Amino acid sequence: MATPEGQARNEEVFRTAASLMVQRGYAGTSMGDLAKAVGMTKAGLYHHINSKQDMLFQILHHAMEGLEREVIEPVKGISDPEERLREMIRLHVRGLFAHGLEFALLFPERRHLEPAQQKVIYQMVEDYLDQIRHALRELADEGKFQDLDINVTASHILQTIAGIARWYKEDKGVTEDHLVEQTVNFNLSAILKQ
Amino acid sequence: MATPEGQARNEEVFRTAASLMVQRGYAGTSMGDLAKAVGMTKAGLYHHINSKQDMLFQILHHAMEGLEREVIEPVKGISDPEERLREMIRLHVRGLFAHGLEFALLFPERRHLEPAQQKVIYQMVEDYLDQIRHALRELADEGKFQDLDINVTASHILQTIAGIARWYKEDKGVTEDHLVEQTVNFNLSAILKQ
Repeated sequence: MATPEGQARNEEVFRTAASLMVQRGYAGTSMGDLAKAVGMTKAGLYHHINSKQDMLFQILHHAMEGLEREVIEPVKGISDPEERLREMIRLHVRGLFAHGLEFALLFPERRHLEPAQQKVIYQMVEDYLDQIRHALRELADEGKFQDLDINVTASHILQTIAGIARWYKEDKGVTEDHLVEQTVNFNLSAILKQ
Repeated sequence: MATPEGQARNEEVFRTAASLMVQRGYAGTSMGDLAKAVGMTKAGLYHHINSKQDMLFQILHHAMEGLEREVIEPVKGISDPEERLREMIRLHVRGLFAHGLEFALLFPERRHLEPAQQKVIYQMVEDYLDQIRHALRELADEGKFQDLDINVTASHILQTIAGIARWYKEDKGVTEDHLVEQTVNFNLSAILKQ
């Protein structure tokens, strides 16, 4: 399903499945539940997905591909590391809201994957972190980086972004624009020498 | 069980139960599994805990009480807000390691609690965040706080701390002392005018 319509349908199926798995927990969700939620027969779902575990893997893989396509790719042309990092954080927070917080909330369930699948997802997260670390290293070379550990700092930055999914409530009156701005400013303030 | 021995036994039971729930997921863990893991009969466990849901509630309540006792209480005498915040972050990261990362990892499962139980835990987390917000407000009054939203900033700080449980791996060679220092420095750098 590589057509735009197919991709949109995939996104819809993955989002619904992610939402159900977050709500009930991985162990509490069956292939029957998933099929019903996405409006397929169980046989129809098995045509696309081999197992519940495969579904979890496909969803997390899809989410990481989304970050690659919508965060990493668009900033490749930005040579200034400070501006690149600002834009990465901005696009990542935007992506959380555009695709649904359930994708971020589902990541802890990756412990239920097969070791080989866990390795694939782990490597995709590491590749993403590498982009952050690379920008931090460039800032350090320019003498603009605070005296902080680059590896730990990259993880802290990622936690402030993905962590939004864990505390954000629609009814609290915090707008997406405000959160984008605040998350960029908090992290840039942390890492830049002033 | 209010004796020190009773408390230590509670901590041990809660930690083992938390660990199992994190590993298998709330839905994938039965009262029988929990009883076996903590070395009790099912009947023996039911003597202390009414249900799996009650166990989850007791664990999260215990974890929040720990923060109250080991982070909030000890810093009450520190009048300087910057020093108080440094010490809060330091003690919180220390507590993660002292009591086990499984407690932090279990918090997303609070969605499986009854609404009334969720409200209790939510309020305990809010009370904790209030202490961070209070220190940030004092810093702002002293003209030392960056131009950031206090509420969003408090959540970001908490995510960098609790988030450690999500990415920390023992085999990566990052020591606890280093993490404590880096987490304090990252957050203080974010919030302080320099």
